[in-house]
Amino acid sequence: MSPANLASPLPHLSAAAPLDLLADFPAIPAGWSYLDTAATSQKPQAVIDAITRGYGETYATVHRGVYQRSADMTLAYEAARTRVARFIGGRPEEIVFVRGATEGINLVAECWAATRLQAGDRILLSQLEHHSNIVPWQMAAERVGAAIDVVPLTPDHRIDLDAMARILTDRHKLVALAHVSNVLGSVLDAKRATELAHGVGATILIDGCQAVPRLPVDVADIGCDFYVFSGHKLYGPTGIGVLWGRAELLERMPPYQGGGSMIDRVSFERTTYAPPPTRFEAGTPHIVGALGLHAAINYVDAIGLDRIHAHETALVRETRAALAGLNSVRLFGPEDAAGIVSFAVEGVHPHDVGTILDEARVAIRAGHHCAQPLMETLDVPATARASFGVYNGPADVAALVAGIERVTRIFG
Amino acid sequence: MSPANLASPLPHLSAAAPLDLLADFPAIPAGWSYLDTAATSQKPQAVIDAITRGYGETYATVHRGVYQRSADMTLAYEAARTRVARFIGGRPEEIVFVRGATEGINLVAECWAATRLQAGDRILLSQLEHHSNIVPWQMAAERVGAAIDVVPLTPDHRIDLDAMARILTDRHKLVALAHVSNVLGSVLDAKRATELAHGVGATILIDGCQAVPRLPVDVADIGCDFYVFSGHKLYGPTGIGVLWGRAELLERMPPYQGGGSMIDRVSFERTTYAPPPTRFEAGTPHIVGALGLHAAINYVDAIGLDRIHAHETALVRETRAALAGLNSVRLFGPEDAAGIVSFAVEGVHPHDVGTILDEARVAIRAGHHCAQPLMETLDVPATARASFGVYNGPADVAALVAGIERVTRIFG
Repeated sequence: MSPANLASPLPHLSAAAPLDLLADFPAIPAGWSYLDTAATSQKPQAVIDAITRGYGETYATVHRGVYQRSADMTLAYEAARTRVARFIGGRPEEIVFVRGATEGINLVAECWAATRLQAGDRILLSQLEHHSNIVPWQMAAERVGAAIDVVPLTPDHRIDLDAMARILTDRHKLVALAHVSNVLGSVLDAKRATELAHGVGATILIDGCQAVPRLPVDVADIGCDFYVFSGHKLYGPTGIGVLWGRAELLERMPPYQGGGSMIDRVSFERTTYAPPPTRFEAGTPHIVGALGLHAAINYVDAIGLDRIHAHETALVRETRAALAGLNSVRLFGPEDAAGIVSFAVEGVHPHDVGTILDEARVAIRAGHHCAQPLMETLDVPATARASFGVYNGPADVAALVAGIERVTRIFG
Repeated sequence: MSPANLASPLPHLSAAAPLDLLADFPAIPAGWSYLDTAATSQKPQAVIDAITRGYGETYATVHRGVYQRSADMTLAYEAARTRVARFIGGRPEEIVFVRGATEGINLVAECWAATRLQAGDRILLSQLEHHSNIVPWQMAAERVGAAIDVVPLTPDHRIDLDAMARILTDRHKLVALAHVSNVLGSVLDAKRATELAHGVGATILIDGCQAVPRLPVDVADIGCDFYVFSGHKLYGPTGIGVLWGRAELLERMPPYQGGGSMIDRVSFERTTYAPPPTRFEAGTPHIVGALGLHAAINYVDAIGLDRIHAHETALVRETRAALAGLNSVRLFGPEDAAGIVSFAVEGVHPHDVGTILDEARVAIRAGHHCAQPLMETLDVPATARASFGVYNGPADVAALVAGIERVTRIFG
């Protein structure tokens, strides 16, 4: 019954051949190029099956039942936690299930900052952060009277770690950076960023939303303090995500939400709280979401993150090379971006690019990508963004490029 | 593609006959009496199908895509919100999707209380509240220096509204009460409780977790200010729930979590927030959870809440009558309890009751049911609890009673 066995080791996948996994994804019809994986990924059948089994065969609540079905579901839920821990190099008791990366960051911004951030302290973010890694820190800073500094980007749109080294002072108590930019695909040297933060005694949180589905991540190797990601961007269900935090930090943090499960003992006079991770999981959790995430991790691990990374960076290079040949296209981000290409077509609003591509059965995203400060830096109101997943291949790149050529003809 | 059409109007259900819906629930095997619905309900095939379709056919992100699939999914997500509003008598813009009732209460305890609760103010709860309707208020009270008062119970274990009338003063700014007790099944006269609260100018939140699956609820008729419930107790998915709040209250509340979607405009200098309900839904929501909840509401509405209520109260009466005939059994709660029976077997720990029943293929819950203050009032460390759903029938009552007779023989 353990979902550890749900994902087969992909026997149809030969180690030498290019990835060809489209058949695993029932929601991608033939001829549709889904290039919005940075927003959310499509789900392999193994994940859908794990969810269906969770609701349709093994369903029960967790942590409470005296009957066998509930004990089994508790084991499955905790097995998902252990699987997540192994996936990113943490320990099970350091894994808090949250709704998504956004909630993970908010939890840290509220509970870590509540006891560790004071008036006059400074928080360091970067110019390319997603709103979810800006707004919670603004709210925390406002509560205590702290201030926010911003690391600029290099000319090829990476977080400028040399600039970061110059900006950091011992007044910086927290650094929060994206591991992979959701707009540009730029990959952070998370290890060096961590060393810089720790060099001034700052705690560092890494937003791994776009990293975890695109490259191997090991929080122990990085050495960071907090790491967050969302399940739905990792081929898993909606409504589930992960906050990893170093045990000694989680232990010193007050609870986030109050309710069932997170308590030790409740009376109207005095309530005491359970240890982490339970302390941070008030109420009935997204049980089947955890099971689905487990299956998703089994799926990507069976492919191998190194291989997924190679596959996606190859698609990015191919796309950039093709688009660079079109005079009217401006490319953003570095050449070695992980799975994501942002671009603009001269004189055409990105939304129009998106709409015309949609008519050609190519789904991209156009907009500010929840990164308005980055748009200001790039000096555009919005970009068009194509982002790849394990199900994409050269046919998708060809469809995208043909679609953009059509855009340039229509507006040319 | 709208999930509004997912649940058939249950053609196999005749209006006159007793409810006989077990065949709709694939996770309940023949001969297994699932009597832990107050913890979480099993899911009808219509809900599982809606989830499978959401991930396996129509999947995309919401609120962002320029392509048709994402626009369709946005319509489906918002259709779920509209369906929830219609189900409880609210307006769509008053429906905030949350993880569950626990998060809904925490959101109000943080965001409403942040601007409306001051030092010296008082909060009124009752002796039978679930921890999720106690701990968030303790945390809020501690933040601002407010105090908590507790309404006692009547001899038959209802919230004593006459006592509440005597306790309430104009220093009480907030009242939070369970519509149906998760331990006792006692039904609150929510309309009278609301009138009492409003009589002193207090805001009232009703925890509807156990009410919404068990009786018709109309927040406009009740007249309350906030109402919360969880999807997974309403035959829906895990990880999704609802906070309903009167529009004028939600509008004046600051955001809860910061992130994508909940903003109007973000810059490092100044961020402005979107109107409700978007303001309170930071990050990618539990999209497929909303679709599954929509299907669950269609399912229970097709049966009819009046009919479900009659069905479950009949099962409760039958159970209480049978257990009252056993000398060693002590019953808690009122005779007309909604779908829930708590009891103790003299000289036997409730966990042992649960374990022996499990051997007899009857799943009940034993414990404090996240209501430790109530356990103190009942003067027991724990109770055994049987709770019914639409799939239960007389055979389950018979199995429960036979199992308890076996308990009394073993320990007799």
